[in-house]
Amino acid sequence: MAPPTPRLVVPIDLKKKPWEQELPLHNRWHPEIPAVAHVKIGEVFRVEMVDWTGGMIKDDDSATDIRTIDLSCVHYLSGPIRVVDKEGVPAKPGDLLVVEICNLGPLPGDEWGFTASFDRENGGGFLTDHFPSATKAIWYFEGIYAYSPHIPGVRFPGLTHPGVIGTAPSMELLNIWNERERELQENGHKNLKLCEILHSRPFASLPSAKGCQLGKIQKGTPAWEKIAEEAARTIPGRENGGNCDIKNLSRGSKIYLPVFVEGANLSTGDMHFSQGDGEISFCGAIEMSGFLELKCDIIRNGMKEYLTPMGPTPLHVNPIFEIGPVEPRFSEWLVFEGISVDESGRQHFLDATVAYKRAVLNAIDYLSKFGYSKEQMYLLLSCCPCEGRISGIVDSPNACATLAIPTAIFDQDIRPKTDKVPVGPRLVRTPDVLR
Amino acid sequence: MAPPTPRLVVPIDLKKKPWEQELPLHNRWHPEIPAVAHVKIGEVFRVEMVDWTGGMIKDDDSATDIRTIDLSCVHYLSGPIRVVDKEGVPAKPGDLLVVEICNLGPLPGDEWGFTASFDRENGGGFLTDHFPSATKAIWYFEGIYAYSPHIPGVRFPGLTHPGVIGTAPSMELLNIWNERERELQENGHKNLKLCEILHSRPFASLPSAKGCQLGKIQKGTPAWEKIAEEAARTIPGRENGGNCDIKNLSRGSKIYLPVFVEGANLSTGDMHFSQGDGEISFCGAIEMSGFLELKCDIIRNGMKEYLTPMGPTPLHVNPIFEIGPVEPRFSEWLVFEGISVDESGRQHFLDATVAYKRAVLNAIDYLSKFGYSKEQMYLLLSCCPCEGRISGIVDSPNACATLAIPTAIFDQDIRPKTDKVPVGPRLVRTPDVLR
Amino acid sequence: MAPPTPRLVVPIDLKKKPWEQELPLHNRWHPEIPAVAHVKIGEVFRVEMVDWTGGMIKDDDSATDIRTIDLSCVHYLSGPIRVVDKEGVPAKPGDLLVVEICNLGPLPGDEWGFTASFDRENGGGFLTDHFPSATKAIWYFEGIYAYSPHIPGVRFPGLTHPGVIGTAPSMELLNIWNERERELQENGHKNLKLCEILHSRPFASLPSAKGCQLGKIQKGTPAWEKIAEEAARTIPGRENGGNCDIKNLSRGSKIYLPVFVEGANLSTGDMHFSQGDGEISFCGAIEMSGFLELKCDIIRNGMKEYLTPMGPTPLHVNPIFEIGPVEPRFSEWLVFEGISVDESGRQHFLDATVAYKRAVLNAIDYLSKFGYSKEQMYLLLSCCPCEGRISGIVDSPNACATLAIPTAIFDQDIRPKTDKVPVGPRLVRTPDVLR
Amino acid sequence: MAPPTPRLVVPIDLKKKPWEQELPLHNRWHPEIPAVAHVKIGEVFRVEMVDWTGGMIKDDDSATDIRTIDLSCVHYLSGPIRVVDKEGVPAKPGDLLVVEICNLGPLPGDEWGFTASFDRENGGGFLTDHFPSATKAIWYFEGIYAYSPHIPGVRFPGLTHPGVIGTAPSMELLNIWNERERELQENGHKNLKLCEILHSRPFASLPSAKGCQLGKIQKGTPAWEKIAEEAARTIPGRENGGNCDIKNLSRGSKIYLPVFVEGANLSTGDMHFSQGDGEISFCGAIEMSGFLELKCDIIRNGMKEYLTPMGPTPLHVNPIFEIGPVEPRFSEWLVFEGISVDESGRQHFLDATVAYKRAVLNAIDYLSKFGYSKEQMYLLLSCCPCEGRISGIVDSPNACATLAIPTAIFDQDIRPKTDKVPVGPRLVRTPDVLR
Repeated sequence: MAPPTPRLVVPIDLKKKPWEQELPLHNRWHPEIPAVAHVKIGEVFRVEMVDWTGGMIKDDDSATDIRTIDLSCVHYLSGPIRVVDKEGVPAKPGDLLVVEICNLGPLPGDEWGFTASFDRENGGGFLTDHFPSATKAIWYFEGIYAYSPHIPGVRFPGLTHPGVIGTAPSMELLNIWNERERELQENGHKNLKLCEILHSRPFASLPSAKGCQLGKIQKGTPAWEKIAEEAARTIPGRENGGNCDIKNLSRGSKIYLPVFVEGANLSTGDMHFSQGDGEISFCGAIEMSGFLELKCDIIRNGMKEYLTPMGPTPLHVNPIFEIGPVEPRFSEWLVFEGISVDESGRQHFLDATVAYKRAVLNAIDYLSKFGYSKEQMYLLLSCCPCEGRISGIVDSPNACATLAIPTAIFDQDIRPKTDKVPVGPRLVRTPDVLR
Repeated sequence: MAPPTPRLVVPIDLKKKPWEQELPLHNRWHPEIPAVAHVKIGEVFRVEMVDWTGGMIKDDDSATDIRTIDLSCVHYLSGPIRVVDKEGVPAKPGDLLVVEICNLGPLPGDEWGFTASFDRENGGGFLTDHFPSATKAIWYFEGIYAYSPHIPGVRFPGLTHPGVIGTAPSMELLNIWNERERELQENGHKNLKLCEILHSRPFASLPSAKGCQLGKIQKGTPAWEKIAEEAARTIPGRENGGNCDIKNLSRGSKIYLPVFVEGANLSTGDMHFSQGDGEISFCGAIEMSGFLELKCDIIRNGMKEYLTPMGPTPLHVNPIFEIGPVEPRFSEWLVFEGISVDESGRQHFLDATVAYKRAVLNAIDYLSKFGYSKEQMYLLLSCCPCEGRISGIVDSPNACATLAIPTAIFDQDIRPKTDKVPVGPRLVRTPDVLR
Repeated sequence: MAPPTPRLVVPIDLKKKPWEQELPLHNRWHPEIPAVAHVKIGEVFRVEMVDWTGGMIKDDDSATDIRTIDLSCVHYLSGPIRVVDKEGVPAKPGDLLVVEICNLGPLPGDEWGFTASFDRENGGGFLTDHFPSATKAIWYFEGIYAYSPHIPGVRFPGLTHPGVIGTAPSMELLNIWNERERELQENGHKNLKLCEILHSRPFASLPSAKGCQLGKIQKGTPAWEKIAEEAARTIPGRENGGNCDIKNLSRGSKIYLPVFVEGANLSTGDMHFSQGDGEISFCGAIEMSGFLELKCDIIRNGMKEYLTPMGPTPLHVNPIFEIGPVEPRFSEWLVFEGISVDESGRQHFLDATVAYKRAVLNAIDYLSKFGYSKEQMYLLLSCCPCEGRISGIVDSPNACATLAIPTAIFDQDIRPKTDKVPVGPRLVRTPDVLR
Repeated sequence: MAPPTPRLVVPIDLKKKPWEQELPLHNRWHPEIPAVAHVKIGEVFRVEMVDWTGGMIKDDDSATDIRTIDLSCVHYLSGPIRVVDKEGVPAKPGDLLVVEICNLGPLPGDEWGFTASFDRENGGGFLTDHFPSATKAIWYFEGIYAYSPHIPGVRFPGLTHPGVIGTAPSMELLNIWNERERELQENGHKNLKLCEILHSRPFASLPSAKGCQLGKIQKGTPAWEKIAEEAARTIPGRENGGNCDIKNLSRGSKIYLPVFVEGANLSTGDMHFSQGDGEISFCGAIEMSGFLELKCDIIRNGMKEYLTPMGPTPLHVNPIFEIGPVEPRFSEWLVFEGISVDESGRQHFLDATVAYKRAVLNAIDYLSKFGYSKEQMYLLLSCCPCEGRISGIVDSPNACATLAIPTAIFDQDIRPKTDKVPVGPRLVRTPDVLR
């Protein structure tokens, strides 16, 4: 009886570039990117991953690398991985692929990460109108804890998770994506709202050959040229999962992914040591290289059984997730609220995005009273285990969003002080009182 | 040494109408609604409240009362309560009023509540385009648990909280509210997005004398006429707190409210036995009468010290909240995701509202596979302790919102089934195996 | 459709003595104490209770009442309550009585409690050899929180529960109790261990007419005389449940009690606002009057189905408990350890009692370094939500017991200090570092 | 700026025997066992460990290895590790050594463990009178989860921890240990209680050269002979920490160990993938090889500042532990109770060991009704994350101990069934009910 050591199906050599890896990485979604590995349901296997930029960001004190980053080549993903059942029959379109996260963590010898905000002209972020410059904070890991020399006085356990995990889209689904995002790119400015103008970010990132890596498909070949023109960028999460950035997808979670192509073709990457809900600064998690230990199962015809299309085709579905009992738990939270009135005082209609922006700005300003710069807090709220909630979405005209911050991550008491009396002697000295 | 029994400062007689109460209720925000009670900081006091409709909804099997409800008279609030310090000096504009929720619950003898969705033409809700009819579910309480004869197979402990808690606005703040909401009401249709059209709900509820109750100010007097024309509706949460619908504001929480008028003039109401994040069906919590046991403190000049204006005036602030360690905790959650692509397949730009709508629709459809109607699940997700998160708000063009549902509230296993083998014998019979 | 307001089946008038109550209380276990109330399964009913001493302890600054207390009359219990099924058939011997705690709390208007240690010669306690004098601390409640003028700087939410809940014993079971306790009383000194000598407490409290209250059975009648001679004291928990002092039996818990007499004859009392595991000072919880809202069910023949006798007769069973998801949760704990070596340095064999004693002494001494007296900490660890664990019970000769204290109950940081550097500026001022 | 990858200070080669390791292991406590590694405070370092038996137990279906095990050579520990401050000054007697557990886990490639009960004549266990035979269950790990082919239907996340962690004793402390344990060994039978007789286990394991490994000290040398005669066995936890078996000492915990010799000489081993409180079957955790990532600090003179002797010398102290926020959390627990009446019906006086034994026996019998053998449940309760509490220790004559089992570890509902109605249709079909 042999112990089931996780089989390493996608190895990473950190000294090599993403395209030099033994199993070359890819940074686009397309049905024709060939699988680089095969797994059976029930077996626990290990996937290693570079950080989402493939090593472009350095462990140093300068944000130059962030400011000048070429975003055309993110996210570098490991896979695709073809999944078959115990008889060797592959997952088929219409099935659900169940992926259990048995374990995960940083790659040994690479226990550090970075959180950054991009320059307004090159990537931007949720608050780019307030924080237009590129900034960077480095985090070091002490086992499950992270601390940053750039944001002193803060230390927290990571709720580590993959930012990107998804199956390959079918050609039909890919076309839907490209069409709807092109429509937004072309016509988005027509129904622009103020908050969107302030973002001044591109509405969408359409397929582009620049920066494209397609795994085993060699650059310059006709196949590469064709796929590079069609393949979807990995920036947004979509029907196949992808860049969901769900911070609680940690140890013990299960993900039920729709299958669109034979074998499912699972890809994953963008490991986060920790992330706050919203990942607000865009490069907002503690980005790192890492590994996942996964176990797959297949629910045959599970899409029909469990998912309901939320759009004009049967493909308009979303994954389902199951969160397990294993995570850092905090008992005290400080909560900041935002309503859908923007910084100019303008009223928006039940707009949760505007409300959340205001909640985050409130939190940043509050925390900056404790000896921090606002840039530091922008990065911290991007990556610490804070919770972003849609508290009220019906009380027109104001959506109410909240941002809850666990107070225990700070080494000082960040709560408003109501009682300024210092801690004094506790001893009640009159013997009669106690006796 | 006398035990500090909470002093009842606002009593409710459930057999009387809101305007017949000993301390008459009010349903508008205005600085000139006079305080009906006074409290000192440090004392624990008790406030009783009617349900938000003041008793218009009956414990029966018909939704007629919901369909025909007159929404001009909600929410009925208890207060205002004037707060003074130990020397009798009232809270002053610029201070922070700290309100600790020591205890809360339903009113004895009135242990029931209702969750409802309004008719599309009379109130609507987050999913009114999908659920245009008025529906109602009654909930009964067994101590901390609620169950509904209309949604069998579900039982959960309430995370009970006040939906509305706030201070009186100053005249200056009131004018800001009225102006910005009028602007939206008049011009909102100009930058309409599809999801908003589908709502077909009024953009805002402007001041109106119809249904107006102003506490001690007698109807028909010139003061009443003036205030009724100016006073803000209580529907949305705003800078003064108000209808925040933050579901975790339960036992042990603290609320730091900005003070805009002398005495703070705290009002509260809209008790919820339980609510899901978003309160999606609008009348979406388990609405009930109830009581709060509160303790106040004043942080002098706290607004300047702790709050940062998020708009053109120093009044553009939001309260801060502190969540304590006392609540029902669940260890397993099923999570549904939505992205900012609407049901027509159209792509929206980082719109958390659209994303959350899709997440909720996904959850409703999924749960309806377990023997429920979609209407039942719409109401359930409005009121059960589910969490609505803004998971990703930067991965353009898709915002990613999630709705997490604690699996333990159902009496059946609602998770997707991967293993259909029934539970069989556990006993490993070969003695050699164990011995 | 009427809302199911809990029916009050045992009312308490706090101005009356235990024996003057409308439904007179009892302080002994005996099958012939007649039921004072009847309930049906499925109905939610309310039971009110005096504190365990029936009002003998006062809200003042003197421990005289504790020192001179007459312990022959504790605990005053409400009931017995006869339980029948929906057809009116009573619970029968061999059934399991399921009791769900729907809600509970202090009696309105009586929101205070006391924690005390008895004099070594009158009651004693776990550490009576270290703390031989009577002491008393008064606690006041602010909703779910308790604080004490006698132990300043501490405040915590109560995990409120009944100390005593049990069914009436059959005559056969009662005889077993009396016999085995008499045997210990008579022969206990023969195999005395040092730690027991130090206790110098009576080994058991045998039946005695002194102080006896038997509910509806009038004092002085022949029935009273007979029962008073036979009825078991309520001090120890036994096969019928009784004084289990399980601190987590709070809202949402279920108790599966064996039924020994027709109707089950459920009694309850000894309400604790909060208690630490072990209730070490004996009068160690925050003792109070209170109410329970309960719901019963009957599992016919459940004793045979679910319980296994752990002794020579089928009656040697114990109740089962189910703890629900609703309680204060703490995330940081300071843990003290003890091993089974006593204060004289003597080694005991796997004795968890000795080990726990040492763990508690360690904790008291440690906490007394933060401005408290040891007496204060003895009382605090009796009543705060601390956890006493049997960590190791096999590593001979040392049992290892631990006492875990939630750090959040103190208003100062009670952890050992490793870093004495004060909190300094957080702002990393070199622009290059962040940018 | 270099990332602080944990430095491997004690490597293990699983293909080698404990005494063949590059840094040879030791299985005794003695001040003169020389340090094999040095660490500075603040640095994160990695220690690898063999399982407590050093590889004597095999991954197979036979318990022969357990039955015939030579227990004279456990536990094999890694270390001692000498700890110095940033200036190179070693920890000194009287200091406190702070050890933070940054991370831990099984050794890569060795992801399995075993739980066993020893034969009554060779090791025994807490319930050896009920389970006299050697049994063994193998566990496989899937990331954080463990499952056993020998106990099917159970799967749980591990709360992984080192069973043994401690500092070296001084000669003076060692003499105290040897003396008090010899006294028990020689005179223990004189004040025997029944429950102890039933155990029929040796009272203590005194120093013995048989099986002794002393790290770098070579067997057969005069130094070896001397130390082997004096060195304490590692079975019991003592003043230096050691085999505490505190199951919550997992990621994020801190241990404050007293320092008795220069350099502290920290040793650790006996990794447990998971353990239940009490580790009842003796070889009761999921025993495995593994690694710890640790970070140390020194509190100078911390023993005097924070510890209080609980015995005749200043050395009679115990470590303090701090439990962090990172662990699997369960929301529903089934709780079994025991009182200090043994299986023969005999009454013991406030004996928590007897009470816990009865609670465990109750739990085993209950769970065996769900298709398991009692042997399986004995092993399961030894290793699953169950909590053993001292609930009441003052209600003479009965101590009340409880064993709480998280219901979620089973794939079937193990709660007593009150409602046998199967799950039926949920849909309330009368339109009027909802509408």
